[in-house]
Amino acid sequence: MTEKIAVLGAGSWGSTLATVLVENGHDVKLYTNIQAQADELNEKHTNEHYMPGFKYPEKLYATTDLEEAVDGADAILFVVPTKVIRLVAGQLKDILAKTNARPLIIHASKGLEIGTHKRISEIIMEELTERYAKGIVVLSGPSHAEEVAKKDITLITAASNDIEEAEYVQDLFSNNYLRIYTNDDVIGVETGAAFKNVIAIGAGALHGLGYGDDAKAALMTRGLAEIARLGMAFGASPLTFIGLSGVGDLIVTCTSVHSRNWRCGNALGQGKSLDEVVRDMGMVIEGINTCEAAYQLSQQEHIDMPITTAIYNVLFKGADIKEEIADLMGRDSRSEIIGHAKDIRRK
Amino acid sequence: MTEKIAVLGAGSWGSTLATVLVENGHDVKLYTNIQAQADELNEKHTNEHYMPGFKYPEKLYATTDLEEAVDGADAILFVVPTKVIRLVAGQLKDILAKTNARPLIIHASKGLEIGTHKRISEIIMEELTERYAKGIVVLSGPSHAEEVAKKDITLITAASNDIEEAEYVQDLFSNNYLRIYTNDDVIGVETGAAFKNVIAIGAGALHGLGYGDDAKAALMTRGLAEIARLGMAFGASPLTFIGLSGVGDLIVTCTSVHSRNWRCGNALGQGKSLDEVVRDMGMVIEGINTCEAAYQLSQQEHIDMPITTAIYNVLFKGADIKEEIADLMGRDSRSEIIGHAKDIRRK
Repeated sequence: MTEKIAVLGAGSWGSTLATVLVENGHDVKLYTNIQAQADELNEKHTNEHYMPGFKYPEKLYATTDLEEAVDGADAILFVVPTKVIRLVAGQLKDILAKTNARPLIIHASKGLEIGTHKRISEIIMEELTERYAKGIVVLSGPSHAEEVAKKDITLITAASNDIEEAEYVQDLFSNNYLRIYTNDDVIGVETGAAFKNVIAIGAGALHGLGYGDDAKAALMTRGLAEIARLGMAFGASPLTFIGLSGVGDLIVTCTSVHSRNWRCGNALGQGKSLDEVVRDMGMVIEGINTCEAAYQLSQQEHIDMPITTAIYNVLFKGADIKEEIADLMGRDSRSEIIGHAKDIRRK
Repeated sequence: MTEKIAVLGAGSWGSTLATVLVENGHDVKLYTNIQAQADELNEKHTNEHYMPGFKYPEKLYATTDLEEAVDGADAILFVVPTKVIRLVAGQLKDILAKTNARPLIIHASKGLEIGTHKRISEIIMEELTERYAKGIVVLSGPSHAEEVAKKDITLITAASNDIEEAEYVQDLFSNNYLRIYTNDDVIGVETGAAFKNVIAIGAGALHGLGYGDDAKAALMTRGLAEIARLGMAFGASPLTFIGLSGVGDLIVTCTSVHSRNWRCGNALGQGKSLDEVVRDMGMVIEGINTCEAAYQLSQQEHIDMPITTAIYNVLFKGADIKEEIADLMGRDSRSEIIGHAKDIRRK
């Protein structure tokens, strides 16, 4: 089948996913709001700012005209930053309303809306409503754009409440280097993708402080346990957290020096102040906002999240990292599965 | 409390755990069958072959007399290689029978018995029986001896069918750099510890072939799913596989260039033959035997283990690694959680 797909967002991941779709034989239009970038993609077939040295297929067409991009599209893939999801979804709604089109929506963004703590699929569906969206599918998993672009092996998840729509997306993207698994747990996939960035800050901090592999593996394991607890409070399945969008993405993010969140933690561990780190990075560090959201949600839902709380204390309360680690190590003894076993049994 | 503990096995992990116990105030005797090693530990307080440069506490006493080591012990910790577990347990039984002693048994070994595929705790309890063992507790998790020895942070699991015995072991070992979590799932902890070595061979092979972080994270995630399926067939809880002895140990083993199993896979990926790899290593590569065991068990229990099967084909059938990877990528599309969703729904 040849499908008409609009890809919104021409950063490294958006342009790479658009390339996969072109190579899989689909008719793809890539939307960017930067004219120079569209021209570069159409004329030189490059995207130097985001994917230096990479050559895009000639069939990939870029445009700054959102209406042209989505005209007649069977599916529309959002790969724009979290903070502009609502804005772009609103613009899209106005366009779709003109023709009463009702495409399938896919998104590959990670994060929560600042202030509301809403998930990406919630934001999009609030704007488009079922009137203008046939359904929504989330693409997530351990994926560096650079590795997919060079046809290295990557496995990711397509999650939807409607498993047939997830399978449609599975078929769209699957080929011999990109393998898609379906999942029906949208909440689990989206919360795992967002919260893992908090743990990545912690993993970077341990590295910056000079801790070894044991400490990082322990942080990732116990961190996974607490983000799973939080996700489950919102209706996620615990199984999703041991899948590609959970532990898979956590591993890639917590062990990659390319992750902005990991680098933020690493700099903090080396003794830099958060202000310095944010200034030096010059880009949004998604995990900082997500940490605040996760902390507030854990308080609201009365969920024990000691690692997230320690990272929150460092980021937002000026706490000393080493003291927070000592506090974590000094907590009462625990059962791995049910938490504080002694307390429970001895009551 | 000051407990009398015998530690059997003076390799890097055994001598390090003995040191932790000494520093926690216990009365420790360390057993080795090598007189020169015992002398070195007692006179120079070093163990150069296993822990170069490390200085042991003067209070740590080593002996080659098993009877002296275990005399009056409250607990006996096995940290000997899998292949001599049954031998040492048999010798211990004869000694305990003389005085009718019934200590608690702890073990920190990883693997399955060749031929029988039995877990370590099964082997020990078959030899000692409940007549001479008050109970058995398994210590496992992401732990490099070198990191524990230098008081880096490490979190591990103490698992027992009797949670009070697990808590006793938790108290024995806990301090400000080693944190112990209890777990009641002995089968899950032991199978996770053993099978993870198979996945580590695969992770090394991907590295040797030049694959990137995405592929390795995917292998670890899907590998974890299949070893959890196998463990569950033997009565393990799925939750254990997302704990310290499951995903935690998997992360450390699959990302560490120090793991023998990872190095074996890496050399295979670089094009060496298994014979060459085994000869060059000069030490037992536990994951090779465990892979055969896991493959045979998966056949016997009719459990789908595509990654383990691919590694088995490479190790034991002379299959080409790249062809096995292409086969894995070319399998029918799957659901992440329930397996082959399309087949199930379309039947």
